Amino acid sequence: MTNKQLTVAVSRQGLYDITAQVASEVAACGVEDGLATLFIQHTSASLLIQENADPAVQKDLQNWLNRLVIENDPLYTHVEEGPDDMPAHIKGALTAVNLSIPIMQGVLALGVWQGIYLWEHRHHQGSHRRLVLNIQSSSS
Amino acid sequence: MTNKQLTVAVSRQGLYDITAQVASEVAACGVEDGLATLFIQHTSASLLIQENADPAVQKDLQNWLNRLVIENDPLYTHVEEGPDDMPAHIKGALTAVNLSIPIMQGVLALGVWQGIYLWEHRHHQGSHRRLVLNIQSSSS
Amino acid sequence: MTNKQLTVAVSRQGLYDITAQVASEVAACGVEDGLATLFIQHTSASLLIQENADPAVQKDLQNWLNRLVIENDPLYTHVEEGPDDMPAHIKGALTAVNLSIPIMQGVLALGVWQGIYLWEHRHHQGSHRRLVLNIQSSSS
Repeated sequence: MTNKQLTVAVSRQGLYDITAQVASEVAACGVEDGLATLFIQHTSASLLIQENADPAVQKDLQNWLNRLVIENDPLYTHVEEGPDDMPAHIKGALTAVNLSIPIMQGVLALGVWQGIYLWEHRHHQGSHRRLVLNIQSSSS
Repeated sequence: MTNKQLTVAVSRQGLYDITAQVASEVAACGVEDGLATLFIQHTSASLLIQENADPAVQKDLQNWLNRLVIENDPLYTHVEEGPDDMPAHIKGALTAVNLSIPIMQGVLALGVWQGIYLWEHRHHQGSHRRLVLNIQSSSS
Repeated sequence: MTNKQLTVAVSRQGLYDITAQVASEVAACGVEDGLATLFIQHTSASLLIQENADPAVQKDLQNWLNRLVIENDPLYTHVEEGPDDMPAHIKGALTAVNLSIPIMQGVLALGVWQGIYLWEHRHHQGSHRRLVLNIQSSSS
């Protein structure tokens, strides 16, 4: 197996469901039993596994985190890159830069209600984010 | 090595020490040098490595997190599954869905004061939680 | 590959850039394509990947976390080890005990602005912290 670079298009702050994209790479690699590790190459966006059923969960997560980590906090001295930049770094520090998910019988061993999300913390990032997917085979 | 499904019985909100259970699986697998990765298949319970000595640490962790992530917050719109459900998702997002611990000389390379915990965030979950343990051998 | 024990000298609360130390171990191991996992064997210090450019980011992260997790909080019952001990455990629980970073073309696949940090949460830890570095080869 080799590492694979993935990109995710993002348009604004929020959770982006990347479960299907990751699952597709896992299917393509042909590993029956192993471990998939996702790594995000940014410090103002992060990774999350959360409930994939009710969209209100994602909305509440975003609103709660925005209230905890406010913009224009007088505490911030790193302000040159905009009011959403330092909050984005803090949010990144509180969530995950990498996720490791077992692969069983050829598919990601996610729970029934689990989805994989890229959490974009900047507002106007009409761009893409870079991830690396590492797959280790446990059966070789 | 193959992935192994584990279950942990939980009865209420709190930290459940699963160090012995994980250590037992590591011993059984016979890997001398490698990496053990635990993954929890839920979004309202999570994983934690914390001090295993003074139970007051676990009590304070729980009380601190309960104060940070309150129940019945008017911010929540996902309220159908009870007042402890949305707080459980937020707590899950702030803690870990997976842990990776090296295996050295056949045992988990935990620090002296480190224990592995399942953190149940729901109140009345007289049930069990599902984990997957992946073990990679580094010496093969 | 085998696991390798690393030590990091720390003198006080703050972020310690360990990117070069980890990169040096990765270069020495000769793996072209794989996964590097760092694990910290402590519960009052943790690991973080954050922006490596403006030192103000690190200062703001520290100040923000210190305001969120205060010392001498009347909530704490675990107080015997000093006013910075229970906050250190909470900060450890909110950040990472392990990080997994892909290795591509023989080097850590970090983003341009990403550095690896040990986050010391105690004040007077004129000592060292122990890490374990696990490297899995994906091409073998």
